[in-house]
Amino acid sequence: MSVKTTNEIDIVKVAQSKIASVDFDNLAFGATFTDHMFVCDFREGKWHKPQIKPYEPFLLDPSAKVFHYGQAIFEGMKAYKDEAGDVWLFRPDQNLDRLNKSAVRMAMPEIPEDIFMSGLHQLIDLEREWVKFGLGNTLYIRPFMIAIGSGVVAAPSTQFRFMIILSPAKAYYSGEVKVLIAEHYSRAANGGIGAAKAAGNYSAQFYPTKLANEKGFQQVIWTDDATHTKLEEAGTMNVFFRINDTLLTAPTSERILDGVTRKSLIALAKREGIKVEERSVLVSELIEGMKDGSLKEIFGAGTAAVVNPIVGFSYQDTYYELPKMADSFALQLKDKLTKIQYKLAEDTFGWTVKI
Amino acid sequence: MSVKTTNEIDIVKVAQSKIASVDFDNLAFGATFTDHMFVCDFREGKWHKPQIKPYEPFLLDPSAKVFHYGQAIFEGMKAYKDEAGDVWLFRPDQNLDRLNKSAVRMAMPEIPEDIFMSGLHQLIDLEREWVKFGLGNTLYIRPFMIAIGSGVVAAPSTQFRFMIILSPAKAYYSGEVKVLIAEHYSRAANGGIGAAKAAGNYSAQFYPTKLANEKGFQQVIWTDDATHTKLEEAGTMNVFFRINDTLLTAPTSERILDGVTRKSLIALAKREGIKVEERSVLVSELIEGMKDGSLKEIFGAGTAAVVNPIVGFSYQDTYYELPKMADSFALQLKDKLTKIQYKLAEDTFGWTVKI
Repeated sequence: MSVKTTNEIDIVKVAQSKIASVDFDNLAFGATFTDHMFVCDFREGKWHKPQIKPYEPFLLDPSAKVFHYGQAIFEGMKAYKDEAGDVWLFRPDQNLDRLNKSAVRMAMPEIPEDIFMSGLHQLIDLEREWVKFGLGNTLYIRPFMIAIGSGVVAAPSTQFRFMIILSPAKAYYSGEVKVLIAEHYSRAANGGIGAAKAAGNYSAQFYPTKLANEKGFQQVIWTDDATHTKLEEAGTMNVFFRINDTLLTAPTSERILDGVTRKSLIALAKREGIKVEERSVLVSELIEGMKDGSLKEIFGAGTAAVVNPIVGFSYQDTYYELPKMADSFALQLKDKLTKIQYKLAEDTFGWTVKI
Repeated sequence: MSVKTTNEIDIVKVAQSKIASVDFDNLAFGATFTDHMFVCDFREGKWHKPQIKPYEPFLLDPSAKVFHYGQAIFEGMKAYKDEAGDVWLFRPDQNLDRLNKSAVRMAMPEIPEDIFMSGLHQLIDLEREWVKFGLGNTLYIRPFMIAIGSGVVAAPSTQFRFMIILSPAKAYYSGEVKVLIAEHYSRAANGGIGAAKAAGNYSAQFYPTKLANEKGFQQVIWTDDATHTKLEEAGTMNVFFRINDTLLTAPTSERILDGVTRKSLIALAKREGIKVEERSVLVSELIEGMKDGSLKEIFGAGTAAVVNPIVGFSYQDTYYELPKMADSFALQLKDKLTKIQYKLAEDTFGWTVKI
């Protein structure tokens, strides 16, 4: 894949990198940032000259629209280092496409491809020392856009800031993941913003997730808000169900995020000859599947978590422990996906892009 | 009503007020702010010493949770000046109560009453010159709380900032308001955050509202997301319908904001002998009511807009023009409410609180 780049970025470098002070063996997810960030402002109806500059706090007016009306969207991506020391992105075109879909839904301006791609490439190029070699080591990439216009009137901003920040990462989850199936709370409405990677979708899940955490569950699997019978997605992941040897996952919709890991796993599974059905999966199918032994696996899929096997779920106060599978689809697919991402297997899909 | 106050606020005043530079006859809503703001930070599990200080931008880390996960809530209130020059609040206890309900739903810490009330009183006391005498002139009050903790991991922040900013205001709307009844987009899910005054609820409405604006409608009346048959609320207002001489409005629920203006109008209407029903109102009832002439009025109710008569609505591409009522409930109730707020009528409810 070729990427259109531009040199029209003002670059200001740090005097001294902080990389030597970072303990790469003990990284909390999303807590450490690299030396630089990418910033591009939109005002007077157009995107202005982008900058790469030292990572640092910035000033906002107390009436900034992002504080009051949540006009904010983001993406999650990763960069990987291969054995030769080259740095790779995974399907960045998909993230740009989704970011711009989110932008439209949230009444924000779309990002031109050249700004997004050249920003991404030049920033990561500058920070390539922060991408460490070795499976599980990644540079987590957080492109995001916020409304920076001021004024406490509930109308879209006319000023926005698009930024990319980078955070070196190990694996997102640790330990076993048990999930609670939502019976009251919901993530998204029909005709709502569930398909957008909008900031407000995430904080809306914090309280119900906290309640689940208190009961010993790490995540919630959301269901449709009208009937709570259809399985949709987890907090930061799409969800797959294996019934016998068929992989099931909810179709993308205006309630469900079009996950890049989700669609990549579907493509990989199909290539491996695994039958995949994108259709509404009912809670009742899981319960039936536990009773007759046909439900083999549940796993989450997302950029941060990659593939996250779920060991059991709770529904109507009953906990269902999933079987331990020797031929786990989750682990097979995770292995195949990460090998492509780290350039340890041939990328027949053309998903990887070199920095 | 008595208010518990504390003197434990650090106060730093501006050297020179900017009030002389403000054109109070030409104020865009929510665009001009007073000299000072109230700030109180929460960290290490507790609220720290509050400050009143010059209104100014503040620094946030690019990874601040409010930018990425929309963990942010707010309130809208007003202060009024009476003929004697005294300044009054309207039911601030209701705003505090709702703010704290929003805080719980958004996994944020509740604000202690003494911090909220003493902040409000001392800040407004300092800015009383900004509250101008005369019907329609108000000081719009915006208490809000944002997640200021850093880190791009989708979990609640542990650090928050509560602020109060003040904006001198004239009336919120100008001109006739026509509304579009939502047939596809939605504001809130069952089990979602519709009842919280959460930032994300507002940006979610911007795009559908923009589409409505392009068709010549100023606001959208939201319907339930499952069937789009039940009328819920408008973008920044609750909605009332008058059928014959009965006033109807949707009951508060987890999808509908418990508006202070809404509940005050209901109390006022009942006192005036107007029959009020808090129940689901169907779109079909409006259409029927237009056909048989029983639908007399529709109006919005909210702190910013107070009472906003709606001149017509569109549904399924048909525009319905409402009759002009000589004995408009909207205007009668608005008159009674504003007279209480400006201390021009006796406050038999005990709603007004002196600064």
